[in-house]
Amino acid sequence: MSGPGPARPRPPLVDHHCHGLLRGEPDAAAFEAYLTESDAPAAPGTSYFDTQLGFAVRRWCPPLLGLPPHCPPERYLARRRELGAAEVTRRLLRAAGITEFLVDTGLPGDLMGPQELAEAAGGAAREIVRLEHLAERVADASRTADSFLATLDGAVRGAALTAAGFKSVAAYRYGLDLAPTPPAPAALRAAADRWLAARAGGDPVAARLADPVLLRHLLWSAVRTALPLQLHTGFGDPDLRLDRCDPLLLTDFIRAVRPTGCPLILLHGYPYHRGAGYLAAVHPHVYADVGLALTHTGARAGAVLAEVLEVAPFGKVLFSTDAYGLPELYAVGALLFREALDATLARWVRDGAWCAADAERVAALVAAGNARRVYGLDSTITGNTWSRP
Amino acid sequence: MSGPGPARPRPPLVDHHCHGLLRGEPDAAAFEAYLTESDAPAAPGTSYFDTQLGFAVRRWCPPLLGLPPHCPPERYLARRRELGAAEVTRRLLRAAGITEFLVDTGLPGDLMGPQELAEAAGGAAREIVRLEHLAERVADASRTADSFLATLDGAVRGAALTAAGFKSVAAYRYGLDLAPTPPAPAALRAAADRWLAARAGGDPVAARLADPVLLRHLLWSAVRTALPLQLHTGFGDPDLRLDRCDPLLLTDFIRAVRPTGCPLILLHGYPYHRGAGYLAAVHPHVYADVGLALTHTGARAGAVLAEVLEVAPFGKVLFSTDAYGLPELYAVGALLFREALDATLARWVRDGAWCAADAERVAALVAAGNARRVYGLDSTITGNTWSRP
Amino acid sequence: MSGPGPARPRPPLVDHHCHGLLRGEPDAAAFEAYLTESDAPAAPGTSYFDTQLGFAVRRWCPPLLGLPPHCPPERYLARRRELGAAEVTRRLLRAAGITEFLVDTGLPGDLMGPQELAEAAGGAAREIVRLEHLAERVADASRTADSFLATLDGAVRGAALTAAGFKSVAAYRYGLDLAPTPPAPAALRAAADRWLAARAGGDPVAARLADPVLLRHLLWSAVRTALPLQLHTGFGDPDLRLDRCDPLLLTDFIRAVRPTGCPLILLHGYPYHRGAGYLAAVHPHVYADVGLALTHTGARAGAVLAEVLEVAPFGKVLFSTDAYGLPELYAVGALLFREALDATLARWVRDGAWCAADAERVAALVAAGNARRVYGLDSTITGNTWSRP
Repeated sequence: MSGPGPARPRPPLVDHHCHGLLRGEPDAAAFEAYLTESDAPAAPGTSYFDTQLGFAVRRWCPPLLGLPPHCPPERYLARRRELGAAEVTRRLLRAAGITEFLVDTGLPGDLMGPQELAEAAGGAAREIVRLEHLAERVADASRTADSFLATLDGAVRGAALTAAGFKSVAAYRYGLDLAPTPPAPAALRAAADRWLAARAGGDPVAARLADPVLLRHLLWSAVRTALPLQLHTGFGDPDLRLDRCDPLLLTDFIRAVRPTGCPLILLHGYPYHRGAGYLAAVHPHVYADVGLALTHTGARAGAVLAEVLEVAPFGKVLFSTDAYGLPELYAVGALLFREALDATLARWVRDGAWCAADAERVAALVAAGNARRVYGLDSTITGNTWSRP
Repeated sequence: MSGPGPARPRPPLVDHHCHGLLRGEPDAAAFEAYLTESDAPAAPGTSYFDTQLGFAVRRWCPPLLGLPPHCPPERYLARRRELGAAEVTRRLLRAAGITEFLVDTGLPGDLMGPQELAEAAGGAAREIVRLEHLAERVADASRTADSFLATLDGAVRGAALTAAGFKSVAAYRYGLDLAPTPPAPAALRAAADRWLAARAGGDPVAARLADPVLLRHLLWSAVRTALPLQLHTGFGDPDLRLDRCDPLLLTDFIRAVRPTGCPLILLHGYPYHRGAGYLAAVHPHVYADVGLALTHTGARAGAVLAEVLEVAPFGKVLFSTDAYGLPELYAVGALLFREALDATLARWVRDGAWCAADAERVAALVAAGNARRVYGLDSTITGNTWSRP
Repeated sequence: MSGPGPARPRPPLVDHHCHGLLRGEPDAAAFEAYLTESDAPAAPGTSYFDTQLGFAVRRWCPPLLGLPPHCPPERYLARRRELGAAEVTRRLLRAAGITEFLVDTGLPGDLMGPQELAEAAGGAAREIVRLEHLAERVADASRTADSFLATLDGAVRGAALTAAGFKSVAAYRYGLDLAPTPPAPAALRAAADRWLAARAGGDPVAARLADPVLLRHLLWSAVRTALPLQLHTGFGDPDLRLDRCDPLLLTDFIRAVRPTGCPLILLHGYPYHRGAGYLAAVHPHVYADVGLALTHTGARAGAVLAEVLEVAPFGKVLFSTDAYGLPELYAVGALLFREALDATLARWVRDGAWCAADAERVAALVAAGNARRVYGLDSTITGNTWSRP
């Protein structure tokens, strides 16, 4: 339960799902906005600092900038400005102890790319390609459904040459209650036609890919590459309907994908993380992530992690931070995870339920080993690049 | 983890969701019936005293009547009769330490009203108007759909002049999978016609408002007043289908209400309380209650409370007892809550996850501050009344 | 939290839901396959020994065969072969301390029957008849729908003369979102016709009873006997869609059965066990099981058990192992349950929430008393048989 003191050896972390960092300096309101999944300012009389994540930031980050833990937000933000964004980023990233980053590059904003992030952290990075973002960029340059579909096909195959995996946010765009099989060609072309026509109207909402036929096509395009496919499930911003993000809604899709062997990684999952653990337990190609769910639950991260570790096999659980924008989210995601995992496994060892050697082995699997195996990451890293497996 | 000894200062409680107390003395069977949400006697060979709530009553209440904790039910009930209902009520209410009561007056039975309750407790009370009950009383006196709707409109506006808020039990009457928007006028009039005609048949079941169009109309009538609107979600008696009371089913309604700013308070929630916490996290106008879920889980109240405090912002969580009929439910609801909150926050402080000052501040918010802000309660109370904000 | 040392008295256990044991000796792969609900080998680079159940087997079983706890799987399996299946079975069954077994005999494989199991354990056994298996055997010998239905009717009544109860796996075959009432005679006959015709084609998939009309008929045939009816809910192998196994989907069926008084026992439930507890709380004829959910969650069994004990009345919760194939699953199921229950109740006593006498009484109810009452088991056992109540 002690903090991340330098005295104890820390196994390296592979962060298999994260995002770029802001290049600029956020003001107080922007900083607070990164502490929540909400799209709105906090309700009158409340603050997003008054959340488990806000408290976790105030616990872990001030000491990394030379302040006492739990100091007031204002003091922390002042110290942050004093040090400057580059130094703050460097300190917080190094404290996280992440050696390898798999970066979803599909989020908007002036964000660092994977290599820039890797350099700041002294680690290595690879890209995770967000399918909907890729399709939207292809659509921007396509005039007909046929050319859109052909270019998209090439883009997915091309991305697969260098990316570590793909990610889908179909949960946000439609929900996970999609038909499980690839769409028929005629239905696919018709859906592409409709979407391109709607986009031509110039409405930014129509420009987003939300059609369930096209979303299914993207999923299956990724599955055919055999690269690991990350699927957003559970908790997220209010764009989604949480009850339509239950990973169990993916059951028939999971069954349909199973013969291909393509690894499916169920991200987040909260509050349906036990169901995600179940899917990882009974389907050989399914994995469960513990990222966002730990960062946002702070003092409760150990309790949530323990629930994931109920039925998910220990070779099927992957660490991530889901960090986005603020380097604080890397530090908090990594330090909370380490503490939650250490404390949980130590308790099981103390109770006699586990032995210490197993605990150490499982900790290394969840922290890095499982991600290395699933994404085919070389354990030998040279500089900031990995050789492809 | 220690009991509510007089030595430690106890922050006052605002009970934002509770009910009247029995005026008379319940016999043993009636007493036991208040310990369960079931509508039937306990199964042969079992007793509702053998529940977490039954054990919690036997833990907290006997000492308040001069008996040892955990004494047998028979002995407790005998002592209760010996002291008389008025003295028992006085002792148990005072022990609860609740200073302000928001009383849902829509339950049947010979129950104390808000002022009577406040006097017995030495506190103050305001009314929460149950929408379905109000509509049924209006329907009793209405002969046409037009007059019903017009009178109902006036009754809701009138109630809003003095009530602290409204409450809906649409969860019981239909489920929360209602269409999210206000019904169209023609559909509304047709539904009112149908309901009044059905009531004219004299069937007591038909007299209950269960039509989804009318339920939606009630919700939106309340939203238009901008007073806080309490919504039953989750756990309740077997009238409801629990899977149709998942607060996430309200997502589209919550989105539709959001522009109005009307505060929505999701009551109970169990076992969907994490979903309620999520809604409170991402929607500025949504709040989560911890009432019934704590009382009925007894020794597990701390565990359930901790789950609510995972993603719900601390400015969004409100204490209540949901007490009904027995003063024991006020005492147990309040004392369990205090102990659960104290123990949970103390553990987080001990682990270093929170600091003591934050814990104290959050405890005061959940106990009273959030309710005062959301319901616009004056912190200065004169006698048994509050001035309106 | 200490192990099951011989020094402390151990209340006897009634295992109200279990299965036969393998007669032969499993090889390493077959052994590992019994540690998971999956139908597939573990994913490359992973092992089903690396699960809570695998760790629990390595914790509890090696000492019973003279090895240190947590010894490697290979060493344990070698010792197992050395001792021979009969001796291993005898040691593990005796360590479980189960005196009475209610055995579901509807699983395939060369398995011990109830009496053989009882003899090996030094206890007594009764049969639980799996409805779908019974119907399939009747269908094997039936040529017309009329004769099938008539023979089935007789078979259910006949089984009721000696069985302790019935079990349905409708959750696997269709899901729990069945219509709640008995099917009409014409619909039933038509469904039987269709099924028998499909079976005549020789497809083994068609031979399985999966028609929702026939499944409903089976449920109601069992209800009419008034024997306890076990219903699979929640967690199971990937044949099922977990989201269609939420016990709350049974709500309308539970309401329809209620007037008959037939006891319904909701098996497993995980991760919907809180919902199962709710149903047990509000419906007098509903009970909740804690079997599979504890065995498969190992170090987390106490946490899961505590969740069941939140709202389920203590007279409504029943122990089982759901053991199948390996005697290890009896030992682990029983020892994990004892430890989880002891530790959970001891903590509540230590916190003052419960008194010691209540804890002891509730432990005996969950371990054996509730099952004895619900299944009408005589507490006096002569040899391996019970007299019928």
